[in-house]
Amino acid sequence: MRIGIVGGGQLAKMTAQAAQRLGFTVTILDPTRDAPASGVSNRQIVGDFFDPKKLKELADVSDVTTFDLEHVDTNAMKTLAAKGTKVEPSPAILEVIQDKLEQKKFLSKAGIPTSPYKAIDLVEPEALKNFGFPLVQKLRRGGYDGKGVAILNDERDLSKALVGESFLEKKVDIQKELGVIVARSRNGNTKCFPVVEMVFDPKGNLLDYLLAPAQIDESVTARAQDLASKTVNALKGIGVFGVELFLSKNGEIVVNEIAPRPHNSGHYTIEACATSQFEQHVRAICDLPLGSTEQWYPAAMVNLIGSPDAKGPAVVEGLSAALSEEGVSVHIYGKHETRPLRKMGHVTVLNHDLQKAKEIALKIKSVLKFRAGVEK
Amino acid sequence: MRIGIVGGGQLAKMTAQAAQRLGFTVTILDPTRDAPASGVSNRQIVGDFFDPKKLKELADVSDVTTFDLEHVDTNAMKTLAAKGTKVEPSPAILEVIQDKLEQKKFLSKAGIPTSPYKAIDLVEPEALKNFGFPLVQKLRRGGYDGKGVAILNDERDLSKALVGESFLEKKVDIQKELGVIVARSRNGNTKCFPVVEMVFDPKGNLLDYLLAPAQIDESVTARAQDLASKTVNALKGIGVFGVELFLSKNGEIVVNEIAPRPHNSGHYTIEACATSQFEQHVRAICDLPLGSTEQWYPAAMVNLIGSPDAKGPAVVEGLSAALSEEGVSVHIYGKHETRPLRKMGHVTVLNHDLQKAKEIALKIKSVLKFRAGVEK
Repeated sequence: MRIGIVGGGQLAKMTAQAAQRLGFTVTILDPTRDAPASGVSNRQIVGDFFDPKKLKELADVSDVTTFDLEHVDTNAMKTLAAKGTKVEPSPAILEVIQDKLEQKKFLSKAGIPTSPYKAIDLVEPEALKNFGFPLVQKLRRGGYDGKGVAILNDERDLSKALVGESFLEKKVDIQKELGVIVARSRNGNTKCFPVVEMVFDPKGNLLDYLLAPAQIDESVTARAQDLASKTVNALKGIGVFGVELFLSKNGEIVVNEIAPRPHNSGHYTIEACATSQFEQHVRAICDLPLGSTEQWYPAAMVNLIGSPDAKGPAVVEGLSAALSEEGVSVHIYGKHETRPLRKMGHVTVLNHDLQKAKEIALKIKSVLKFRAGVEK
Repeated sequence: MRIGIVGGGQLAKMTAQAAQRLGFTVTILDPTRDAPASGVSNRQIVGDFFDPKKLKELADVSDVTTFDLEHVDTNAMKTLAAKGTKVEPSPAILEVIQDKLEQKKFLSKAGIPTSPYKAIDLVEPEALKNFGFPLVQKLRRGGYDGKGVAILNDERDLSKALVGESFLEKKVDIQKELGVIVARSRNGNTKCFPVVEMVFDPKGNLLDYLLAPAQIDESVTARAQDLASKTVNALKGIGVFGVELFLSKNGEIVVNEIAPRPHNSGHYTIEACATSQFEQHVRAICDLPLGSTEQWYPAAMVNLIGSPDAKGPAVVEGLSAALSEEGVSVHIYGKHETRPLRKMGHVTVLNHDLQKAKEIALKIKSVLKFRAGVEK
């Protein structure tokens, strides 16, 4: 099989490595020469995700085309799909997910619990006050890694409101943030990976660490997996989807957001599960049987992000120290430039004891750093 | 780090994938365009392993140069190393290992038990008879995958003798064939992976299946690991080495052969161990700390070889059937041409029960086939 991937970031890199292991070839499309996935793919087409010609060029050399991000020209992809190109997941799904308001509408329509929301025409104090605090304002388009989201707890936060097409959501009184990776194949068969727990740093709304499995009751696990499966079934998606959920303090579970692709919360599956989310994605889009999602070992995961004060050629510090810890798998994406809080890599730690895994993971996060080097 | 690999076969492919995960870049040198490692490396230099210019070209773009095979121009590599290029393991070690007679002499000199042997000038019936049956005749150079080795049980086998520079070895009355992957770092620190058991198909002398860990007493495990470590320490090698051993029916252990690189018997480490043999090799040659060799799960491994009657463009059959089994990791190397008994891939099966893993592995071996397709 020849796999085409729109986008050449870390998700494409890890997907390409899984595809190559199965003997498949991979072409990526990315505007940045030497994008992370470039070195592990057979070929890179240098071009934009919104360039119909480049998208066609990719599809033309691929038996199936997939995505490493949702911000692409879905119209161009729809045209290609209509002409018989195999594109998974379908561009129509990406279209729903690109617009967070459409995503909310979709969830409501499908009867999937999600926090109450309201579209607003203009971001005006009156509209915000009328909706009621505490609220979450989300830009409809373009957000990622906590960007495009504002939390307004009361009137004093009005100045934090973002400018742009947006909608409002009731703020959930969160007990835990959970994630489930779901794979769905053409015949409608779905498989869930274990439920994970994501602990966020309140500053910057970035993931602090992830625990797999989540430390929750079995009944919560079952409900979370059921909701995640229902969501992906309602989308009729083919491939792997990351479903983010909130467990509220009163025990309710709501779906927060969907990613139509492998997701940061599933990186631990590379080392900890019988099948990784990346191989599972490849299997799903290539109409191969889905693999076992059994987790062999407890795992903790941390993201490695660019130092807040650094912008420039990426220099890794502390790799030796990190690799001297037990059960550690270091993933460095190979981005040439570090920027404040940019995702530069991640580390998964396996340990018989999940708490010990977490401690090691946090220790590594404190020693493995991305600084800016000198321009060559 | 920029890693250079002489050779672009499956060992280079899996080494490159491990190096890329750590954010390193990889260049390979291989005469075959689109060699297996090519698609997962940043660059391929198309050239021969015996071309000093191409070897220099590779070394010039690499911070450290290593090997996916031992049949290379060691003189050229020695010259490069003398001029300050970092080459690991050292070309002098490859030189010893290239010549199986030199390898035997080295083992004897180091006081490492190995089966008694004798160099012969000419392959004549008298010389063979004088040495005594049963014997193993080995060509000094160029053997691989059971080629270059003849087993002569008695005078009736004299016609099986090979032509070429060779030596004779007493045939060990083998109880089990064992393997140990040993990593050694610049500071002399060594780490052994678990002892594995290799079961060979008497026809063709090819691996039938591998069990990890080997089903042997703890005392045998300790002795095998001790011998393997001693061997690699005596070589003063840096990197990963595959040490093949025989456990005789009377409980003796002797070293059979050494591979100065990752080895087929260590492929199971990708899924089953805290660190894979490939990452361990990268760590060792890059002066990074060696990783834990803990085995998380029992594993069985089978090689996927070209059908005996097929030569031509490789076509995989039975991939869906193979992937529908539990705990299966399929590796297809991406060789364009299948040839009789050529190593085309391998499959590792993890299972709580080692016997069950073996059954699944053998089942997959019977369904996953490489046929010859039509030339395009």
